[in-house]
Amino acid sequence: MENLQELADAVVSRLFVELEASGRHVHVTAQQAKVMFGHPLTPERPLSQPGQYLAKERVRLIGPKGEFRNVAVLGPERKEGQVEISLTDGRTLGIDPPIRLSGDVAGSPGITLEGERGRVTLSHGVIAAQRHVHLTPSDAAKFGVRNGQTVRLQTYTARPTVYGDVAVRVSPEFASYVHLDYDEANACGFRKGDLGRLLP
Amino acid sequence: MENLQELADAVVSRLFVELEASGRHVHVTAQQAKVMFGHPLTPERPLSQPGQYLAKERVRLIGPKGEFRNVAVLGPERKEGQVEISLTDGRTLGIDPPIRLSGDVAGSPGITLEGERGRVTLSHGVIAAQRHVHLTPSDAAKFGVRNGQTVRLQTYTARPTVYGDVAVRVSPEFASYVHLDYDEANACGFRKGDLGRLLP
Repeated sequence: MENLQELADAVVSRLFVELEASGRHVHVTAQQAKVMFGHPLTPERPLSQPGQYLAKERVRLIGPKGEFRNVAVLGPERKEGQVEISLTDGRTLGIDPPIRLSGDVAGSPGITLEGERGRVTLSHGVIAAQRHVHLTPSDAAKFGVRNGQTVRLQTYTARPTVYGDVAVRVSPEFASYVHLDYDEANACGFRKGDLGRLLP
Repeated sequence: MENLQELADAVVSRLFVELEASGRHVHVTAQQAKVMFGHPLTPERPLSQPGQYLAKERVRLIGPKGEFRNVAVLGPERKEGQVEISLTDGRTLGIDPPIRLSGDVAGSPGITLEGERGRVTLSHGVIAAQRHVHLTPSDAAKFGVRNGQTVRLQTYTARPTVYGDVAVRVSPEFASYVHLDYDEANACGFRKGDLGRLLP
């Protein structure tokens, strides 16, 4: 029975990638953390990507039309602040974010962030994350894809969907997961543990 | 030039169906309208489906975890109350709606609605609308599909997507449009006027 389970796991891992839904969150610089919290970020729990963590600190996102309280901050600190929201969140905030890969924030809208100790206004940095798949080099080789290309993704979810324009990101520092935002997760009826398959 | 435009329109209409995004809304009975507003629904503007209209009246949706104000009421009145929300809305309200076609509300969760004049509590009726395409009989024949089946839909949108499990609904009383909820509309980057194609 254990051998059968191992066999099944091997077949599944050869064909499928686990899906994860990313809620709205922010990345901050060390200086922004100091202004908003008075100290560096404090890890609360690790995320699926090695070295990344959810911080104990939370922020308020303040847009021209609305706000969100208690928004997750992900660590470690980065060289530039960034706010990742869904298009649905954008309607609430009154901000129309471009669809971008993390880190590609040139020309994107700004926003105000507020922590317990202070406020920071970003002149730019608000994006809706392009759907993407993190792959280890060995998984990328297995699936026959390379860093920087886009693929289609079949979701094995309650509302079956094929997402196009899924960016492939390959690094030895990654764990293999597909990242969808909450609009995408809900549109396909995602539940934790659901799998997807990269289509050629 | 006009002839070329007509030709282009003919080609497009032969292959594509216009997409529409449906926001959260409610349908009420005549009796529920009387309790909540003190009078029958008042049409504000017609919707794309012939005979359907957005009412001037608005309601508050009150769930166990949150609420929405100023929610659209669609007329005319029906035989049974129904509340259509997205899965994202469900998280805000604290309600986990089943994915159903309009009218199929047996066993679904309840909710409280409030108008200016009174409240109504539904014992059931909250659903997330299954994505669907309304087709005239002639368009259904043209696309080779029939009422009750499901098809896949390729969206020609900013975030290209193929939605599976799209219900086909055919009636001489319909105008041909695909209806997505806001999760689905945002997941595919829908903008007003975007088109979709039914896949075999």
